Amino acid sequence: MAGNSFGQLFRITTWGESHGKGIGVVIDGCPAGLPLNEKDIQKELERRRTGQSKVTTTRREPDKIRIMSGVFAGKTTGTPISLLVENEDADSSKYDLIKDLYRPGHADFTYDMKYGFRDHRGGGRSSARETVGRVAAGAIAKKILAKHKVKVFAYTKQIGDLVAKKMDYSEIEKNIVRCPDKKIAEKMVSAILRVRKQGDSLGGIIEVVAQGVPAGWGEPVFDRLDADLAKALMCLPAVKGVEVGIGFEAARLKGSQCNDIFISKGKKIITKTNNAGGILGGISNGNDIVLRMVVKPTSSINRVQDTVTTTGKKAKIRVEGRHDPCVAPRAVPMAETMVALVLVDHLLRNQTARMAP
Amino acid sequence: MAGNSFGQLFRITTWGESHGKGIGVVIDGCPAGLPLNEKDIQKELERRRTGQSKVTTTRREPDKIRIMSGVFAGKTTGTPISLLVENEDADSSKYDLIKDLYRPGHADFTYDMKYGFRDHRGGGRSSARETVGRVAAGAIAKKILAKHKVKVFAYTKQIGDLVAKKMDYSEIEKNIVRCPDKKIAEKMVSAILRVRKQGDSLGGIIEVVAQGVPAGWGEPVFDRLDADLAKALMCLPAVKGVEVGIGFEAARLKGSQCNDIFISKGKKIITKTNNAGGILGGISNGNDIVLRMVVKPTSSINRVQDTVTTTGKKAKIRVEGRHDPCVAPRAVPMAETMVALVLVDHLLRNQTARMAP
Amino acid sequence: MAGNSFGQLFRITTWGESHGKGIGVVIDGCPAGLPLNEKDIQKELERRRTGQSKVTTTRREPDKIRIMSGVFAGKTTGTPISLLVENEDADSSKYDLIKDLYRPGHADFTYDMKYGFRDHRGGGRSSARETVGRVAAGAIAKKILAKHKVKVFAYTKQIGDLVAKKMDYSEIEKNIVRCPDKKIAEKMVSAILRVRKQGDSLGGIIEVVAQGVPAGWGEPVFDRLDADLAKALMCLPAVKGVEVGIGFEAARLKGSQCNDIFISKGKKIITKTNNAGGILGGISNGNDIVLRMVVKPTSSINRVQDTVTTTGKKAKIRVEGRHDPCVAPRAVPMAETMVALVLVDHLLRNQTARMAP
Amino acid sequence: MAGNSFGQLFRITTWGESHGKGIGVVIDGCPAGLPLNEKDIQKELERRRTGQSKVTTTRREPDKIRIMSGVFAGKTTGTPISLLVENEDADSSKYDLIKDLYRPGHADFTYDMKYGFRDHRGGGRSSARETVGRVAAGAIAKKILAKHKVKVFAYTKQIGDLVAKKMDYSEIEKNIVRCPDKKIAEKMVSAILRVRKQGDSLGGIIEVVAQGVPAGWGEPVFDRLDADLAKALMCLPAVKGVEVGIGFEAARLKGSQCNDIFISKGKKIITKTNNAGGILGGISNGNDIVLRMVVKPTSSINRVQDTVTTTGKKAKIRVEGRHDPCVAPRAVPMAETMVALVLVDHLLRNQTARMAP
Repeated sequence: MAGNSFGQLFRITTWGESHGKGIGVVIDGCPAGLPLNEKDIQKELERRRTGQSKVTTTRREPDKIRIMSGVFAGKTTGTPISLLVENEDADSSKYDLIKDLYRPGHADFTYDMKYGFRDHRGGGRSSARETVGRVAAGAIAKKILAKHKVKVFAYTKQIGDLVAKKMDYSEIEKNIVRCPDKKIAEKMVSAILRVRKQGDSLGGIIEVVAQGVPAGWGEPVFDRLDADLAKALMCLPAVKGVEVGIGFEAARLKGSQCNDIFISKGKKIITKTNNAGGILGGISNGNDIVLRMVVKPTSSINRVQDTVTTTGKKAKIRVEGRHDPCVAPRAVPMAETMVALVLVDHLLRNQTARMAP
Repeated sequence: MAGNSFGQLFRITTWGESHGKGIGVVIDGCPAGLPLNEKDIQKELERRRTGQSKVTTTRREPDKIRIMSGVFAGKTTGTPISLLVENEDADSSKYDLIKDLYRPGHADFTYDMKYGFRDHRGGGRSSARETVGRVAAGAIAKKILAKHKVKVFAYTKQIGDLVAKKMDYSEIEKNIVRCPDKKIAEKMVSAILRVRKQGDSLGGIIEVVAQGVPAGWGEPVFDRLDADLAKALMCLPAVKGVEVGIGFEAARLKGSQCNDIFISKGKKIITKTNNAGGILGGISNGNDIVLRMVVKPTSSINRVQDTVTTTGKKAKIRVEGRHDPCVAPRAVPMAETMVALVLVDHLLRNQTARMAP
Repeated sequence: MAGNSFGQLFRITTWGESHGKGIGVVIDGCPAGLPLNEKDIQKELERRRTGQSKVTTTRREPDKIRIMSGVFAGKTTGTPISLLVENEDADSSKYDLIKDLYRPGHADFTYDMKYGFRDHRGGGRSSARETVGRVAAGAIAKKILAKHKVKVFAYTKQIGDLVAKKMDYSEIEKNIVRCPDKKIAEKMVSAILRVRKQGDSLGGIIEVVAQGVPAGWGEPVFDRLDADLAKALMCLPAVKGVEVGIGFEAARLKGSQCNDIFISKGKKIITKTNNAGGILGGISNGNDIVLRMVVKPTSSINRVQDTVTTTGKKAKIRVEGRHDPCVAPRAVPMAETMVALVLVDHLLRNQTARMAP
Repeated sequence: MAGNSFGQLFRITTWGESHGKGIGVVIDGCPAGLPLNEKDIQKELERRRTGQSKVTTTRREPDKIRIMSGVFAGKTTGTPISLLVENEDADSSKYDLIKDLYRPGHADFTYDMKYGFRDHRGGGRSSARETVGRVAAGAIAKKILAKHKVKVFAYTKQIGDLVAKKMDYSEIEKNIVRCPDKKIAEKMVSAILRVRKQGDSLGGIIEVVAQGVPAGWGEPVFDRLDADLAKALMCLPAVKGVEVGIGFEAARLKGSQCNDIFISKGKKIITKTNNAGGILGGISNGNDIVLRMVVKPTSSINRVQDTVTTTGKKAKIRVEGRHDPCVAPRAVPMAETMVALVLVDHLLRNQTARMAP
């Protein structure tokens, strides 16, 4: 109710602050009998980890995961899975300078307005470090989906004005911006390094694809698959927009252009095109699910900005700390995570949709 | 859990099918003591009603609302408010022709895949008629917000290639497309009538504004105000994308361009620009909340399309029924509704955020 | 959240006041494909209906149920089922006399304290008439359970000092107090008529049995089957206690007396005794589930009682209206209803407990 | 949804197994600004700790609590509070002998039926050790209640045939069975030591009192205060029954005996007697809230019992491990915990019941 849980049947609750003792997540509702060990989770954490390349922040958290409960003899037991990462490289010293200032683009001001005060160290709870818990839970979600032949992956589609054109999925994890277009990827890296040098940052667009989702997942009328996915992506830090399939382009189309025509393929009914992005009436239609989200340029920039103090006086601020000059590359595993969490939830929810024959 | 409820503390549950006995909603969690009568609700229903102008469907439902419970002596009692509209002009005859066909762009196929069969008459539960219940509940939400000096309104920003430029809010309800730019509005009407004549349809973009929301509403980290709003709009029929503030444009910006600088105005702290759309870290910052959603062109078009039968055989389909050639004008009150529902929910949720001093 | 919904996956929301326009319920989460018509529901309503015998209130509501949505071609569609009963015989005139008085044993005072005012007519929302909606939903729950070979029934075990000894289940519905012991039933009827003549009322104990529940239903650690059942029964009007299996008697026993020994019977493992009442560690163990609840003597009694006015002044009150002199006989179908609702919910919840092999 | 969370607005999620790496709880919805440190919590854990006296199990867990998140500068921040206790004295060796046997009275069999296998060490998740997390959360709930002048306490009312008569609350924490009647307490201790010597165990009854709850807490019609309390107590290990106020005794009373008459006391309206146990129509009436729960005799007894193996073969079992010969003394803080959790939840829920004037 206070907003730190996500999902209905596969329900995660994250906790922890950027510079507190640790970060963690409790997963309630993971079916019993799934093989699971710490490596399964660690490998996903590596993908979102700080300090992984020259385009990410230099904070170096080992992010060593411990499974505290819910797994016995190598398998999930059906009871809550508690995952824990202790913070190690938290350097709060630089934040003392800004504890009475509101950083532009950050949640400092709004947390103060809501709660009356805040943990100012590294953004406290509003830090992207909170997503460690999500990604850890997402690793489990992905394993469950894999058992159902569903695969979720994401990539950087755009950074600044640079848009990927070639869609070579095998390229994605080979470059540090996670872009499927090798040439554009190189340009993106250069662009990011350039803005970092300028003490500035860049925005971008991530595209997520889920392959293998059967027709029938999603609940009318509020918990539509697309609605739950929109919320899932929009609750990631820095996201300002989400679209499904054709997305905002639909405004310019006519019905005769936008409708996907049904055809038969073997024993399956599919659609010829996929403007719908795999979802009709809030329920999956068996096609690839395709979504995009936009991340704003990182708010922490290494230059002097105008702001006010917590008492409203004019001030200058220079956000030191260590920050990603572009959120996109590390947002890729986060986007996958959120989509995987929604899909597992709806996979489970769909199991009770019909009377047994 | 089966997806027909929305909200946590101000919780609505809608029910009803397009061609069933009626449509309704139960609101649980409306605070006691709010003055309320049927006129308050009826006037909002008129705005979403079919048959209200030459650009909407010709189905003529009076949509006469009855308050069945939860109001006594002119005030809400704190107990569930049940609102009921009986269906009158349901003409199911034309749907018999298509009960074994899958209409492109509709949920026929996905409902069949999920439930094993469907109520094919008028789209059954997946019909936009379901939103009668939402709009009725939204009327109550708006009354509560008004008591807190919060106003929510929406308008058509774009239809096809026509984009409103002049933002004269007093124009909105004066034209039948609900566009704040009088001249563009006229062009929009012509464009809609033109595509209808062609047996086709048009998409569009709706912008929603909430004025007067104080800083502090929204819950980290999953139930962010923007995340809940994204879900709220995305679960409206035909919506394919949602953005907040600067939205997708953020991909092209640098941090130094995108950050809104804090300034003092009297005793309040506000931001100079509003690229954030009134929300930082998922919590309202006191600025106007600004959102946009895109609606795809109506899937029901009055021309022959290819499709398949429920058994997968090739077929031709011509969707007769009565349909809006462009969803946008009637989507305006729906968008307002969803935003109002989310805001009231977070207004209530925020009341428990702090210990009493 | 405001307390008018019950269940997680099979979720009901009731609405309506004793003397309002009607009473109803929306069921969300009923699986698709269940054959259902109004008769299925009406027959359960008859069992809780007022005016059914000389030991019940004389208010005569026909309680004619209408299925407003969620059923098509004789089967549930998976979408919300809205059930509606319009009030007809509401006689509010007698309640005007007591609108400024607090009836002893009733919720008048507490509703005023909570909401600031109340619908005083017939108890408003706190009337047992609210259970019409529950029993209607319970009829559907029972149909689902029947498909899974689970049967729920209840009976009056005790009224005043009269305790049923013979457990002849075939007798239950043959006498108007619903007691399995024919002789005791006759004495119970006499006792009730006697206290009614005295302008007084009697309490009693209802026992509920669920047969055929397989081992494995129930969720650790909070949503235990027994915990959910305890809540389910305790939220019925007039209930002051609930026990499972051996119940309060357990205080006097030793472990060696109380433990049920496991034995094999054919291929099944069962227990020799059933002190546990069919539930171990919150999960069903395959035995009959056995529960009891106590109902207090009806608070509305036809004699002068001391009380205070809403402003705290001393006053005399005589509750006229029409009331059951003993709640027990009509509480039998209500108790069955609540148990059936919990069981269906856990039946559905259990479907996601394990990974598919 | 999988049953490991409790509460709506003050929501706790517990995790951990008896012999796993640790035990913990995440609290979401604790209002910001509550002073809190580890000592506040530790002192409640001491009261439920094993090895605290000669009538409890000899397992000696230090139960050292760590606050991992949600507290900054000595106050709660409004974000999730994660509490962690690492297991230290887990001795799983004795459990290997019984991993293929079903212990009578335990959840071994039902967990196997539900999940397909189980963590057999010390009962795994079904161990009473799980309540460490609850009691830790309950310590916070009690602090919030104290700010609202509400006090919750419990005591042993009965063990075997020994029933406390003198109600001297100052005695409760002075004796190791937590009984308010000093003389009976001594007899209880002797009785427990006697059954332990016999390799047997005893049941008992705990009474819980909440003082200072104002009129108006509780939600009609399902989430009644008494219904939520019934669930809260029934979901504690070993509990087989719950009653409120007069409880099961109500079956034998007439309405004229059972009704509590309203009277004025100063400016407050109270009742002369408290048969209702402080709750009318599911809402607190300002009187003391009084509840009782029965705990069965500990299932683990140190003598040979008949049972079956996991494959259904006849077997003998002797449960070694270390166990309380009577659950009651340590169930006292657990009962207080559950009542405190429910009360805080309803305190928060009640804050949104009315429109601000």
